[in-house]
Amino acid sequence: MILTVTLNTALDVTYTVDALVPHGSHRVGEVIERPGGKGLNVARVLGALGHDTVVTGFAGGATGTVLRDLLAPLPPRDALVQVAGNTRRTLAITDRSTGDTTQLNEPGPQVSPAEWAAFLRTYEDLLAGADAVALCGSLPPGIHVGAYAELVRIARAAAVPVLLDTSGEPLRRGIAARPDLVKPNAEELARLTGSREPLRAAGDARRRGAHAVVASLGPEGVLALTPDGVWRAAPPAPVRGNPTGAGDSAVAGLLSALAEGLDWPRRLARAVALSTATVLAPAAGEFDAAAYAELLPLVTVEPHVPAP
Amino acid sequence: MILTVTLNTALDVTYTVDALVPHGSHRVGEVIERPGGKGLNVARVLGALGHDTVVTGFAGGATGTVLRDLLAPLPPRDALVQVAGNTRRTLAITDRSTGDTTQLNEPGPQVSPAEWAAFLRTYEDLLAGADAVALCGSLPPGIHVGAYAELVRIARAAAVPVLLDTSGEPLRRGIAARPDLVKPNAEELARLTGSREPLRAAGDARRRGAHAVVASLGPEGVLALTPDGVWRAAPPAPVRGNPTGAGDSAVAGLLSALAEGLDWPRRLARAVALSTATVLAPAAGEFDAAAYAELLPLVTVEPHVPAP
Repeated sequence: MILTVTLNTALDVTYTVDALVPHGSHRVGEVIERPGGKGLNVARVLGALGHDTVVTGFAGGATGTVLRDLLAPLPPRDALVQVAGNTRRTLAITDRSTGDTTQLNEPGPQVSPAEWAAFLRTYEDLLAGADAVALCGSLPPGIHVGAYAELVRIARAAAVPVLLDTSGEPLRRGIAARPDLVKPNAEELARLTGSREPLRAAGDARRRGAHAVVASLGPEGVLALTPDGVWRAAPPAPVRGNPTGAGDSAVAGLLSALAEGLDWPRRLARAVALSTATVLAPAAGEFDAAAYAELLPLVTVEPHVPAP
Repeated sequence: MILTVTLNTALDVTYTVDALVPHGSHRVGEVIERPGGKGLNVARVLGALGHDTVVTGFAGGATGTVLRDLLAPLPPRDALVQVAGNTRRTLAITDRSTGDTTQLNEPGPQVSPAEWAAFLRTYEDLLAGADAVALCGSLPPGIHVGAYAELVRIARAAAVPVLLDTSGEPLRRGIAARPDLVKPNAEELARLTGSREPLRAAGDARRRGAHAVVASLGPEGVLALTPDGVWRAAPPAPVRGNPTGAGDSAVAGLLSALAEGLDWPRRLARAVALSTATVLAPAAGEFDAAAYAELLPLVTVEPHVPAP
């Protein structure tokens, strides 16, 4: 079983309007709601790949109920911990003509110390049956900034490989707890290390504690610094599309291959093929299964040769 | 008992952001939710004035549940009819710095013929105990455009005074069914009659079937054409503030005085004092009770003298 943790789950709401005009009044054409938050997105991809997947984290209030109702028919199993506060909504307002999107993110529920303690008990129980765990996304209000570091340490004590995908101070603290893998994008890596040169920055992230760093470089693929070597993996050709969820699909690819005991080149190929197939899918955050199958053997994975 | 009908109830959601930037990403500072839709707003004001008030219309889905939970502790009694579809949200995004607001309105649930029939039964039952009824706001999808005309005829058959506050084609059809009172604003009156001259347009609206027309003219107060005479009513001085809900407060004032058997000048004074006290209140759609009490004796109500 693969476990994903989403402390700040979200109901992703999409509004379609003709064009968003500040201080105007708009008739919303279509309202789409789906369960969101990075760990839930990762789990959905893992479920689609056929992995037994469990999601935990927090859900609460009326929005939490809607989220869980939408999650119920999907493959990932729901082990979310109920909280008193209301799960946040993230609202994407899409202009019909151009497809441009305006994003508004609610803050998320205040989580109490008792609710955090209840989560820790659930997390430890679930780790007993997990082949790997991914810790994903932002922290809701009330959760201490070292929360991911705490969760990394618990996973390592349970000998479960742990992937951390977050940003800012929670990433900085989490890395120091020595996770098996972090998957920052170029921006997160630059904020963490101060360097915009991916190889240098990823090396710095390893020295800070991450056993392996897979830096996602957008259309260029990924750069991986691991105990077994350094690789660059890239799609056969750059693609155009909606990059929403591409990073979450990369995490799913890495976890999927890790859980199957595949080596680094095959993990990276899966990550790049899945994230590219996500950019190509018409619906944001979904992946195109046919494109994934076609892309997988075409991803180039090359050992990195340092410049002379 | 005063009955208000809101066929397209709404959960009014307000987001506060620093400033709305199209195609940007925004952190929402505060999320406020309250029960909305014109008839619910009218009922809330009537409840605050101490009137026994019942609200009906439709509510459904997860948003309907939130709406009813928020309604439960308020004075108006909930006689909303449950529907399968999801009650709409209206989202107001307020820029923190300027107070400017961007509005996004969801379309509302599709109402089935069986749900409309269930509503009609509830409506007829409630009319048996009503001193007056207000029919307020837009129609949700699935409701025929002559719905308000049908509801006006049923109220008149039950000998219950009926006020209609809507716009566009539902107003045009509803007026032809001879409601006791309509309360259009200048814009709605112009769309109905083609005339931007309030006295002429209100006269036209009466000829189309309304027994009385109270046209709301914003800061200038109201113009009333009634079977008993023609009046202009105005606040003692123009005020600045948030006009959201001022029209609904005017409806509440008219209904409140009508239910108490007051004459037209006193009905108009109450409408103008309440709508002005709503503009003055810090929270959108609420009214300032102290300002209302102060304003009530100061509203000028003058019989209209036609120009020579």
